Amino acid sequence: MKNLIVGQSGGPTAVINSSLFGVIKEGMNQKERIDHIYGMINGIEGFLKDRYIDLEEELTSEQLQCLRTTPGAFLGSCRYKLPEDLSDPVYPKLFKKFNALNIGYFFYIGGNDSMDTVSKLSRYAASHRESVRIIGIPKTIDNDLVMTDHTPGFGSAAKYVASSVAEIGIDASVYEAKSVTIIEIMGRHAGWLTAASVLARKFKGDNPVLIYLPEVPFEMDHFLHDLEEAFKTKNNLVVCVSEGIHDKDGTFICEYSGEAGVDTFGHKMLTGCGKYLENYVKNHLKVKVRSVELNVNQRCSTFTQSLTDAREASIAGSSAVTAALDGNTGKMVSFVRDKEPGYDISCELVDVNEVCNKEKTVPLEWITKDGTDIADDFITYARPLIQGNPAIPMKNGLPNYAYRK
Amino acid sequence: MKNLIVGQSGGPTAVINSSLFGVIKEGMNQKERIDHIYGMINGIEGFLKDRYIDLEEELTSEQLQCLRTTPGAFLGSCRYKLPEDLSDPVYPKLFKKFNALNIGYFFYIGGNDSMDTVSKLSRYAASHRESVRIIGIPKTIDNDLVMTDHTPGFGSAAKYVASSVAEIGIDASVYEAKSVTIIEIMGRHAGWLTAASVLARKFKGDNPVLIYLPEVPFEMDHFLHDLEEAFKTKNNLVVCVSEGIHDKDGTFICEYSGEAGVDTFGHKMLTGCGKYLENYVKNHLKVKVRSVELNVNQRCSTFTQSLTDAREASIAGSSAVTAALDGNTGKMVSFVRDKEPGYDISCELVDVNEVCNKEKTVPLEWITKDGTDIADDFITYARPLIQGNPAIPMKNGLPNYAYRK
Repeated sequence: MKNLIVGQSGGPTAVINSSLFGVIKEGMNQKERIDHIYGMINGIEGFLKDRYIDLEEELTSEQLQCLRTTPGAFLGSCRYKLPEDLSDPVYPKLFKKFNALNIGYFFYIGGNDSMDTVSKLSRYAASHRESVRIIGIPKTIDNDLVMTDHTPGFGSAAKYVASSVAEIGIDASVYEAKSVTIIEIMGRHAGWLTAASVLARKFKGDNPVLIYLPEVPFEMDHFLHDLEEAFKTKNNLVVCVSEGIHDKDGTFICEYSGEAGVDTFGHKMLTGCGKYLENYVKNHLKVKVRSVELNVNQRCSTFTQSLTDAREASIAGSSAVTAALDGNTGKMVSFVRDKEPGYDISCELVDVNEVCNKEKTVPLEWITKDGTDIADDFITYARPLIQGNPAIPMKNGLPNYAYRK
Repeated sequence: MKNLIVGQSGGPTAVINSSLFGVIKEGMNQKERIDHIYGMINGIEGFLKDRYIDLEEELTSEQLQCLRTTPGAFLGSCRYKLPEDLSDPVYPKLFKKFNALNIGYFFYIGGNDSMDTVSKLSRYAASHRESVRIIGIPKTIDNDLVMTDHTPGFGSAAKYVASSVAEIGIDASVYEAKSVTIIEIMGRHAGWLTAASVLARKFKGDNPVLIYLPEVPFEMDHFLHDLEEAFKTKNNLVVCVSEGIHDKDGTFICEYSGEAGVDTFGHKMLTGCGKYLENYVKNHLKVKVRSVELNVNQRCSTFTQSLTDAREASIAGSSAVTAALDGNTGKMVSFVRDKEPGYDISCELVDVNEVCNKEKTVPLEWITKDGTDIADDFITYARPLIQGNPAIPMKNGLPNYAYRK
């Protein structure tokens, strides 16, 4: 009988621990085929330093339930990129550790970069006749993975964005004086999450009046013109922008303010296009201007978790376990949306090599012609993903968050 | 039979509309003594321009229920200060309008400045034998009104702060690398809301490890020292600061940023104290630093509404109506906490002249000696105020927010 190991990698989401819950629960259901259920601490990076726990020993049944509504990565995360060269000594080192722990099933919950890890490990295993079955479980608020209808984590983040934008819009409309409120939403290259702000609109003409995604070049002059047009029919304007909006030359608007770093994957560290635009509008229009950066709350709010998203995240985890037991490896769990009527999904498996290091952006036909609004097709796509409120276990007036002792 | 009029003033909260609900509901209960229930649009400023609505005509019973979980000010708000000189012509103008509408009862939901309006109107009424009874209903997330145990609006904002700080702390702890996360919380002069971040702590030594209120001077050198000490036992530090922290000379830390950055147009990039401290720490310690400004979400989040707060806000509204019917005027509704055991409040009336233009700060004995933490007495005080989750009417996956047609 083999053991199972699971890890979390990349940025956390509100439901990445629901996927962990799904893996653990299914692992416990398959006791006749799976012995221990291990968790890597800080992903593959921690595992290389022999950091792992036995999850059944660690978690009481109460804490296991709390996992479902606990944001962050219960096991800790990493941003560790395995070498491209599969003859690098890190690979035999890793598999020696897997074999020492009698690992038969390896699950990695993550986004693009994590699927790169799944791809490399499964390719190494195939070429070295290692028997560990390796499956990726998708996770990202950005919804930018290819070959899946959507990703676990997106629905909850979209619900946070939609409810926050609605509430900021209500808050910003209490005074008579003209105002602009600029809301900066996560998304470097794909505007899925910013597009979700359209779900905040309660009636035609309601805020947000302008929505800018990174899929369409952003021009400062057009922006001022768009605001002036919008002021003709409305006093309090809410504008939603992706953090990654850029001009037609590809320069990020946040870079206009002069600062930009680079993270360990070579991505530009982006902050502050909302703040930059706030100052810009203040200097050009004589109105009250405020900017709000939704920031990390987008990916870690328990109260705005989408029940649909949490359930699907858990199903993705349990499906990965049954897929591995069925003999699959080198795959990622993928969501396929059922045909109308009604909304539901089925889990399928896709080749992880076809997924990693690719990015799915918002189709241009879902962005209206002038690049300032979102089409109804997106609303039809996204609305089912934010449905339902979870039952949150409470303690001392706050969610009872699971944590490692 | 007389009519009732109600207005909202100052910054909105998550439960200011619960107080409005309480006024309307109690007004409807008293149909034998109250005829119409009017709402001023944009407070006293809008009323001076004859902007008001009949609330029973405006609100369906469904929308009336939705009011309880709708943030912002349903009636709109204003920041209009009545003249100090009670012989100013605005006063007879206002009372002429009251009389034309046959107003017998005037209710104003607001904070410090709004109680100033209540004080002036009631003093004018007394000296001119006007029969309108004028009652203030407290409201502020800042919890800085005197002569009341706490204010409606604080409990929900405190719950938002506590849950967000807990979740940001979880999010910030997923990687092994040392990090500092600075969370900027509302509160210019009083640190009540920042103090509520202590409620996020799940166990001794948990984040937030440092909490700075405006009641104690903030020194940059001490701050760096505090961080270095905290790093001795913890890798991921969460620090909570009030927006109004200032040095011993009274200069706000956010004002330091005036010298810090200039954008490409040569305009000053003004930021909050959190962003300033982020850059300061980046430049002095070799660790990852992030800042999060909780911003307006603190006062307008439906999902983190405290049921205790919402109910009390509604009771404050209904108490105001019965108090006016009982012949009271020139008063503010005040909360008196019951003696132990258990938590409950009673509503009493206090002289509004004793309340307006004063500010209640956090007692220094509730701030621990070195000015970086909060004492248990505050936790005992604040914990009951964040209890309970409301039943939120939902529509299309989001709260069904009430709005004016």
